[in-house]
Parts: sequence; C-alpha cells; structure tokens
Amino acid sequence: MHNDFSDDEKNGLYKAIFSRRDVRSHFTSEPIDDAIISKILNAAHHAPSVGFSQPWNFILIKDLDTRKKIKESFEIERKRASHLVEEPQKSKYLSFKLEGILDSPLNICVTYDPSKFGPFVIGKTSIPETGIYSVCCAVQNLWLAARTEGIGLGWVSILSNETLKKVLELPEHVIPVAYLCLGHVSAFAEKPDLETARWLPRLELKDVIYYEKWERKENSSWNNIHELIKANLDYA
Amino acid sequence: MHNDFSDDEKNGLYKAIFSRRDVRSHFTSEPIDDAIISKILNAAHHAPSVGFSQPWNFILIKDLDTRKKIKESFEIERKRASHLVEEPQKSKYLSFKLEGILDSPLNICVTYDPSKFGPFVIGKTSIPETGIYSVCCAVQNLWLAARTEGIGLGWVSILSNETLKKVLELPEHVIPVAYLCLGHVSAFAEKPDLETARWLPRLELKDVIYYEKWERKENSSWNNIHELIKANLDYA
Repeated sequence: MHNDFSDDEKNGLYKAIFSRRDVRSHFTSEPIDDAIISKILNAAHHAPSVGFSQPWNFILIKDLDTRKKIKESFEIERKRASHLVEEPQKSKYLSFKLEGILDSPLNICVTYDPSKFGPFVIGKTSIPETGIYSVCCAVQNLWLAARTEGIGLGWVSILSNETLKKVLELPEHVIPVAYLCLGHVSAFAEKPDLETARWLPRLELKDVIYYEKWERKENSSWNNIHELIKANLDYA
Repeated sequence: MHNDFSDDEKNGLYKAIFSRRDVRSHFTSEPIDDAIISKILNAAHHAPSVGFSQPWNFILIKDLDTRKKIKESFEIERKRASHLVEEPQKSKYLSFKLEGILDSPLNICVTYDPSKFGPFVIGKTSIPETGIYSVCCAVQNLWLAARTEGIGLGWVSILSNETLKKVLELPEHVIPVAYLCLGHVSAFAEKPDLETARWLPRLELKDVIYYEKWERKENSSWNNIHELIKANLDYA
C-alpha cells in the first residue's frame, strides 16, 4: 500500500511523541477551550481496546472541594513514600514538584470498568489485564492530542486509589487508572524534569532492545538493524 | 504559550489516531525497512514512564520456530475461550481471524521489568501498577508511529503468558505485556473489524464522559462542553 501520510503529518506525530512532557508546573490560568477538551477526549476514545470493549470512562473534574481532597491524598502518600528512601535522595525527592492538582484548570480521572460488554470479551479470556492496558492506550492518545493543542498534562500517581474511589464515588468493580491534570502552560520543558534534575538518565535505545530472546543483544541475522539502533540519535 | 504545532502536524496526530487499526490480516510479504523499525522503536522508547523508569524492553522476533510455538499457544487459548461463550456467538468468534503471527514479517514482545532503576521509583510507591501502565503507553506510541509509516500492527492477547515466558526465556520477575505482529498491509480497514462484523458497536463519546463524579451525566457548570460532546462526530 502507498503510504498515505505526508511528511508534515508524519512529523506531527513524532513531534508530539518527542516533545510530550509530564507537566507538574508552569500551568497558566488561561482556561482550556471546550472544543479542545471535546477533541482530545475523542482522541482518547479512539484508542485500541481489547475485543473493542472500550472499557474507559473519563470523569471531568473542576470542583475545588474534590480537588482539595485529592491533593490531601497526594500529600499523605508523598510523605509516606519519602520514608522508603535514604538521604540524600530523600531530600531531593521531597524537593520535586510532582503534581498540579490545584494549579491546573482541569483534572480528569480515567477509569477502567471491567464489566463493560462482558463477561465474554474477545481477547481478554487468557490475559484479563488487557482490559486495563486498553485504558492506558487511551491515556496516551489523550496525552499526545493535548500536546499538539499546546495543553500540558501531568499524570499524578502518588495517590491512594481507595481515596479516589471514595471521593469520586466509583463502584467497587471500577478501577481508577490515571489521575490527570491539564492546562495551558508557559512552556514545555526540553527534557523530562527527572532527567534535568539528574535523578535518572535516559536509557539508550540499544539498551532496551533484545533479539529473538531475553537479553540477547547480538544476533547475526539482526546485524543491520542493530547498527541502526546503536547509532540512534537521542531525541530530547 | 503560542501553540507550536502547524495544522498539518496536528492533523497528522489525529489522522494516526483515527486510522490506526488492530491488523490481523492483509499483511503483505514486503519486508519492513530496518530504518523504519528503528524509528518506531525509538518512538516507543520516548513514552512517558513513572519516575522516568523506562521499564520496557522490546524483543524483536523473526525466528520461525519461536513464532510457531507462539501460534500454537494462540490456538490452544482460542479454543479454550470458545467454550466460555454460547452459540451463535461461539461460531462467530471462531470465524474471526484474530492474529497474524506467521503472516507478518516481524513480531515484537514488549515486556515490563519492575526491577529497573528500583526499588525506589518516584510515583510507583502508592500504585505499583503504574510501572506496567508506562509499558502500555510505549505500545501505543509504537502503534501510532507504525501507522504513520504505513505499517500495520496487531496486538495478540489470546496467548498464555506462561508459554511466552518460557519460549522467550524471560526471567521470573519480567512480565510480557504485549505480543505484536507488524508488517506492510494491502489496506487499512475503515473501521475496526469487530465493529464491521457487528460484534460490538462503537460507543458514543457522550456515553464515556462523566462530570465531577461517577455516572453524573448532567452538570450545570459543564453544559457547554456537554453539548459539544453530544454533537461530536463519530470518526471511523
């Protein structure tokens, strides 16, 4: 088949992927246009899903009382986590800005409902976790779409799921997968914050690729691609 | 901030999202260019990851013996699943083509290694599942990048993870997250196969959106966006 993407269209996708950031600060007070919110939610809804089960829901949150309760949960969990690590990492960890729950104009909780179109979902019979994997693909679509619209997004995972379920009144069987903070930003950082802070380095592409089986880093029938992967430029 | 995406670049991302398909047939014998394989793997590697832990590995698989073993596992699991559903769905399920393990020139197993940069990973202390969620985001990046390059991708989830681990020699602590089949295709379907076969309908966007709390479908402070979401066009 003739490739149906122009160079500009292709570049748009790669640009979104390489310039997407987990945004925790630099949110501005400018509200997000409703049409853009609808557009990026539609992008999320067009993610792949196991057996076409579309097991996601998106709870849009602006209410200050709700957000304050979520922020409280963040503070508790952040403190709890700090006891798991020794100095000097502990102080460094506590110095990081890790969420924008109250600074961003829009929060979205993305949930997984395993009962949707069930109980027989094609493709979910051997590995039931694939249902939740579909929801993660929707989050990534939403994230990339937001980036192309100039909207920053941060995923807050230092939270108690029990608190989230109580505050958002989720039924017992529904799992909160992602708690997202969205808003316009003054700038997107060139690199991930944790890379800039020298918390962790970005791995080289060659370090995450194996050939045929686990940990095989050389293989005669993969020589050509191995050279390309080793030479791969590191995008910011 | 001034939006830094041109209309063509933005359209590229949305076009990839809306025209991406789970491809199980229509693979051609044309090999995938090594430079493209390297490029889409790099896109996957630039997914977000909890605490910048980059917990993914990509095992590239061409070996026929390996693929035959995986295909065998698919056949066993597919048959097993068929006993979970009554006629007429059972026959319909068994009539679907659900994988391209041997028809596609490249298989990739994407794995999750929870020990990478551990044990203290920022953001993974309250919800350890976020590690595996990061790997799913990488899969979605890979899928979208492949689409812009004209490469079809199918995610095979009717498999035994135990078999996958044994065949690919994964260590005990590593989890196979996705088994992907990639290749050039004669065409991308306009709609998901399961939608075309009337197995399940695509939900309307308004059916997956709630306001402030679970199942709240109306909310006075969300009227404007609710109207936009209800009017949302259904993209193929």
